[in-house]
Amino acid sequence: RFMGLHFFNPAPVMKLVEVIRGAETDPGLVAQAKSLMEGWGKIAVIATDVPGFIVNRVARPFYGEGWRALEEGAASAATLDYLYRELAGFRMGPFELGDLIGHDVNFAAAKSIHEAYFGRTRFAPSLAQGQLVAAGRLGRKSGRGVYSYTDEEKPAPELIAPQGAVRDLSLLKAVMAKGEANFEGARLFYADGRSASRAAADARMPAVVIDYLRDPDAATAIAYAASDEKADAAALAFVSQSGKSAVRLKDRAGLVVFRTLAQLVNCASDAVRDRVASPEAIDLAMMNGVNYPFGPLAWANGESFVRIASALDAIADETGDAAYRPGEWLRAAARKAL
Amino acid sequence: RFMGLHFFNPAPVMKLVEVIRGAETDPGLVAQAKSLMEGWGKIAVIATDVPGFIVNRVARPFYGEGWRALEEGAASAATLDYLYRELAGFRMGPFELGDLIGHDVNFAAAKSIHEAYFGRTRFAPSLAQGQLVAAGRLGRKSGRGVYSYTDEEKPAPELIAPQGAVRDLSLLKAVMAKGEANFEGARLFYADGRSASRAAADARMPAVVIDYLRDPDAATAIAYAASDEKADAAALAFVSQSGKSAVRLKDRAGLVVFRTLAQLVNCASDAVRDRVASPEAIDLAMMNGVNYPFGPLAWANGESFVRIASALDAIADETGDAAYRPGEWLRAAARKAL
Amino acid sequence: RFMGLHFFNPAPVMKLVEVIRGAETDPGLVAQAKSLMEGWGKIAVIATDVPGFIVNRVARPFYGEGWRALEEGAASAATLDYLYRELAGFRMGPFELGDLIGHDVNFAAAKSIHEAYFGRTRFAPSLAQGQLVAAGRLGRKSGRGVYSYTDEEKPAPELIAPQGAVRDLSLLKAVMAKGEANFEGARLFYADGRSASRAAADARMPAVVIDYLRDPDAATAIAYAASDEKADAAALAFVSQSGKSAVRLKDRAGLVVFRTLAQLVNCASDAVRDRVASPEAIDLAMMNGVNYPFGPLAWANGESFVRIASALDAIADETGDAAYRPGEWLRAAARKAL
Repeated sequence: RFMGLHFFNPAPVMKLVEVIRGAETDPGLVAQAKSLMEGWGKIAVIATDVPGFIVNRVARPFYGEGWRALEEGAASAATLDYLYRELAGFRMGPFELGDLIGHDVNFAAAKSIHEAYFGRTRFAPSLAQGQLVAAGRLGRKSGRGVYSYTDEEKPAPELIAPQGAVRDLSLLKAVMAKGEANFEGARLFYADGRSASRAAADARMPAVVIDYLRDPDAATAIAYAASDEKADAAALAFVSQSGKSAVRLKDRAGLVVFRTLAQLVNCASDAVRDRVASPEAIDLAMMNGVNYPFGPLAWANGESFVRIASALDAIADETGDAAYRPGEWLRAAARKAL
Repeated sequence: RFMGLHFFNPAPVMKLVEVIRGAETDPGLVAQAKSLMEGWGKIAVIATDVPGFIVNRVARPFYGEGWRALEEGAASAATLDYLYRELAGFRMGPFELGDLIGHDVNFAAAKSIHEAYFGRTRFAPSLAQGQLVAAGRLGRKSGRGVYSYTDEEKPAPELIAPQGAVRDLSLLKAVMAKGEANFEGARLFYADGRSASRAAADARMPAVVIDYLRDPDAATAIAYAASDEKADAAALAFVSQSGKSAVRLKDRAGLVVFRTLAQLVNCASDAVRDRVASPEAIDLAMMNGVNYPFGPLAWANGESFVRIASALDAIADETGDAAYRPGEWLRAAARKAL
Repeated sequence: RFMGLHFFNPAPVMKLVEVIRGAETDPGLVAQAKSLMEGWGKIAVIATDVPGFIVNRVARPFYGEGWRALEEGAASAATLDYLYRELAGFRMGPFELGDLIGHDVNFAAAKSIHEAYFGRTRFAPSLAQGQLVAAGRLGRKSGRGVYSYTDEEKPAPELIAPQGAVRDLSLLKAVMAKGEANFEGARLFYADGRSASRAAADARMPAVVIDYLRDPDAATAIAYAASDEKADAAALAFVSQSGKSAVRLKDRAGLVVFRTLAQLVNCASDAVRDRVASPEAIDLAMMNGVNYPFGPLAWANGESFVRIASALDAIADETGDAAYRPGEWLRAAARKAL
């Protein structure tokens, strides 16, 4: 008999409402509520009554992966926020978004989901965010979070400006299309879950891995990790000839933005497996509840489920962390796509 | 100096008593207590003082796997309960048993074991059972649990009746003996840990996986998962010619009953590794403390430890869930059996 | 603005001080504090503000692995303590050290670290130690811990004395150098993460695995596990001809001392990945904060990172426990070392 309606903040702006059906809820009532919400101009998705419903469950890796990249020193917070925006089209990166939401609220949500799912490691909260909260740096509302809001200057992303005025995107597009290309004694790879070090060992030559790029024409930067100095020089020359700025990442499996997206797909897939909602409803929810630039499952389908599942396996192999292993729905989707 | 005696409910009916030895308990005292209990007509097993002793530790996957199958929509609760009874010979399935025990009691036991073992994922409680408890649906005692006890009608298992009057068990027995057989354009596999989708990819043809069947002569139903519509048609024809009803399961690694049994073996094996009790004592405890139709370790020996360990690896591979990986004792037993 | 100084007990004797830098700490202040401490004759290492800092985070497997070996019955507590001293050069084994520290204190630290890292399985506390604490057996201070301190007799390690007066170390040194050698119908392996049973299956002949030995000349004992009786006889003859006592271990992946050291390397590597401290600082901290005979990372470098990473994979494969998988820093170090 229970049925819930979950709105998103700020409610007048955010179009999403999650219509929550319990084990007993009358399906007719659910359909009626959905219609009513749509009549109000809302985008209504039906979700099972599980902790976090769709959005607050599926979104966990957006924060978790961001914080983990920061803890490991992949790049500065401002650089990471910049990359989530610039490479993937998120409106905000996880740190500026956390500063807006309030880290106390965001961290409490992470802890609560993690506990509700009995410690499922996919949902592990971030140590560093917990320390931020303990230090009272709650975000904009306390004048200080990841960034300071008392003085004017916000730290800038660490960009390496291009040399010269060339702007040739052909090699970039070739790498993105074929997955790899040789350039100046190094092999360039488009993000596939491996670290540059792993890719170099496989290729038996210096290797560069390039992070995900949603729009190679519009993006003003390319992020990469290099296996050694020779590869780094090749990477900088490659980025420069594309006329874009370079962001040098600490080498790690799957880099940053691609790894986050892949793990978001994994969590979205688990939600389908657990019958939280349909793939379409999940995508709609993420786009309209938290402004994602695309639905994770439609994105994975476009990139190919095979590629995403295999990248997650590569991340799990390299990190030794089983939380990255593709779940059963994703593995089956990859098989179906073959 | 501590020694415990753990009886099972209802004590006059259930023959088992666990004689608990602490690190310090005088072995003579333990032997004496065992004899005394046997004099009372009890079946006494010696167990180390660990959380859950033998029975409440080893039995966890019976509930955990049942609930997980339900959450994933493998079949309805009534169908799942039916399969545990019909295919494996359990007296009750996990949902009707939970309704009898009380889900508050059953869920509290699950949480307590999970916490006592510091979050070991093999023992993870079920989210859906926790929600049932939170909703006050405690089972028979509250008039409502998984099933309702206020009105008469209990939901029936979802069976597909056989077409025609044939009753030819030869193909069924061949599949069970050899593990596979071709039939009407599909390959039939006897439960080996894979999903039908995985088996189809391996066989490069439509595939059906048949769940465990303890007694092919007596069982009135066969449960299966199919990789596609062609495989589903073959499965239905195959089941029909055996004169039995069919249960169509949602495709998943290891299906339902076989996966539960395999994970019970895994937990029993861990208990041997951790010196909780001998394999014989564990089997005796499960048969007499919770009425299992067989001891999990003797069952695994009969099915072959190699087959069970390899099935658990297949389930871990497909689900991405390391909780299914065979433990060290089971892996060594499989090696010894080769 | 926060900066911490973490001393070790007893402070006048233990040279280590961890200088803790928070996210905001002025680097100049940190350097100043380090100099000041060094002026006091301390060994100062800089560490990030994470739960357990360096020492109490990296040291977890020393206790965890010791207790796990005891729970699985690898050998008696007195034998295990003896092996940590004799084979690796630790001043005390985990049980006598726990008796000295107090198991309440030691167990509380383990639980607190495990919780602070949101249940990371690398840091899982020991069930048996928790039971010891619950039983009031806190160690020396309560007159009783793993050992009793009220009567005089301390249990002796279980040693099998050598037969005859030969003392030929050539075969032992050959096994340690080459990793394996045949002897009396069995193959002897130097600890590589496998169990003897696994090694026998790989070699297709009876197998013996020999635990780590820091100093083959000085050590008075050799610990081994054998795959069967024939291998056991070969092992005893082999140890006897080296003029040393033998310790027969229950067969398990990685044995005892080697497995503990390998997992310490894993935890130290994770600390580098998470930027807790530099490899050099971690080694210095473990040697001077808890008297380790060597720094885990320098040790791994000497043994070869490739060997340690591959041994951890073998332990993870055999135990099914993902907590042993090498972390990303260790895997990259192994690749670099190739």
